[in-house]
Amino acid sequence: MSRLLKEQNFALQILSMVLMDLETKILTHLRESQLNSQQLLFLVEQAKLHPGKVTVVALGPLTNIALAIELDPEFCKNVRQIVLLGGAFSVNGNVNPASEANIFGDPEAADIVFTCGADILAVGINVTHQVVLTDADRNKLIQSNGKFAQYLCKILEVYFSYHQEAYSMRGVYLHDPTALLAAVNPSLLTYTEGAVRVQTTGITRGLTLLYNKQKRFGEVTEWTDKPTVKVAVTVDAPTVVKLLMERLMES
Amino acid sequence: MSRLLKEQNFALQILSMVLMDLETKILTHLRESQLNSQQLLFLVEQAKLHPGKVTVVALGPLTNIALAIELDPEFCKNVRQIVLLGGAFSVNGNVNPASEANIFGDPEAADIVFTCGADILAVGINVTHQVVLTDADRNKLIQSNGKFAQYLCKILEVYFSYHQEAYSMRGVYLHDPTALLAAVNPSLLTYTEGAVRVQTTGITRGLTLLYNKQKRFGEVTEWTDKPTVKVAVTVDAPTVVKLLMERLMES
Repeated sequence: MSRLLKEQNFALQILSMVLMDLETKILTHLRESQLNSQQLLFLVEQAKLHPGKVTVVALGPLTNIALAIELDPEFCKNVRQIVLLGGAFSVNGNVNPASEANIFGDPEAADIVFTCGADILAVGINVTHQVVLTDADRNKLIQSNGKFAQYLCKILEVYFSYHQEAYSMRGVYLHDPTALLAAVNPSLLTYTEGAVRVQTTGITRGLTLLYNKQKRFGEVTEWTDKPTVKVAVTVDAPTVVKLLMERLMES
Repeated sequence: MSRLLKEQNFALQILSMVLMDLETKILTHLRESQLNSQQLLFLVEQAKLHPGKVTVVALGPLTNIALAIELDPEFCKNVRQIVLLGGAFSVNGNVNPASEANIFGDPEAADIVFTCGADILAVGINVTHQVVLTDADRNKLIQSNGKFAQYLCKILEVYFSYHQEAYSMRGVYLHDPTALLAAVNPSLLTYTEGAVRVQTTGITRGLTLLYNKQKRFGEVTEWTDKPTVKVAVTVDAPTVVKLLMERLMES
């Protein structure tokens, strides 16, 4: 390739980078403006009214939590704990090899949340992939009279099909129930601690990276002096499944 | 912050991104032009002269191997195997929490090498951190008459001090010997397989990410259709240390 062509190519690459970044920022802005500010105010005000009492269980992208933090920097201190379903710590993601879906939904927001200084417990797919509702469990739900069990069984086939197709397994991961139960009964999980940052550009956009503090780096890094958060590493999966099944069957 | 200030801030962020990227590209170019083209030609020609016979053991940043690939696209087919010391697979890096030193030295080159289609065995710090030369080993070297043992002991103190400071350990990691012995006797290691890409931008620049193919993604990802490489996961550490000690003491 000639030097001129190479330079044109390079200029195009830079332009395309800038445009992609602009597009992301504009989309994020649009998404933000659509959020109901009343919901945000409720979140911020409840935490302020009951300092140290409100636990937030965040089961989707973290846009609203990041906005709450920007709306009231005291939110992080007022809230008791943020239990978030998100991240793929030292494992492949589920949107692509690098990124888990909730973090991928808004990586910038996730980085704000992870570094805000609140008491955070992250439940990633490295943990929720240990909690599987099997075909046998599903059959028990079908045979039960629980109204939520009945309802769930009606809509569960698409989720089973997806797991069969994507993971070649007969069973489904219990992502949200695991995060919720982590908030209700923290002793169901063990966790490690460290600073977490989220990559926001390039092919690993949405990747969550925990610095476990085992090495002292000679120079300042992007993880230096960032608050410590908790990252779940193991879970008592049989108990999580049992608790969920009981709740569904006795509904 | 006012809208105008925010927009100025945003424009500055974009400008700074572009400048950082330009700087990286210029530095890379300078580094490349300083490389001895005779060495590159030797590498490419030896592989061509002896197809399927030449194993390259790459113990530093992968700039020269990437240039060899660009110089001769057949290089990847001609070479028997590239055993490379590099990467931090599912563990923290040693330059910063995301990146290992050799890959960090030239992430663009590393991504070219990992995706070139050659038979590649990557020995990362997730494996070399399992291989430790202890204080007791060092004392044995001091007492031996081996000339390389004697020489090594004279220069080893700085490396021990570094490990004490950075990792709070009395002992040193045997990075390069492990990669070299992996080429000599592959049965000293076990490995997994998948596509590896290297992140080249942002806070995780230099991060190596292996896609283990456990999930079939619905959409095309940056790992889709990329060649499979081998990534070391376990090592017979006692044997690596023993082989190195013998070689040094009997020299």
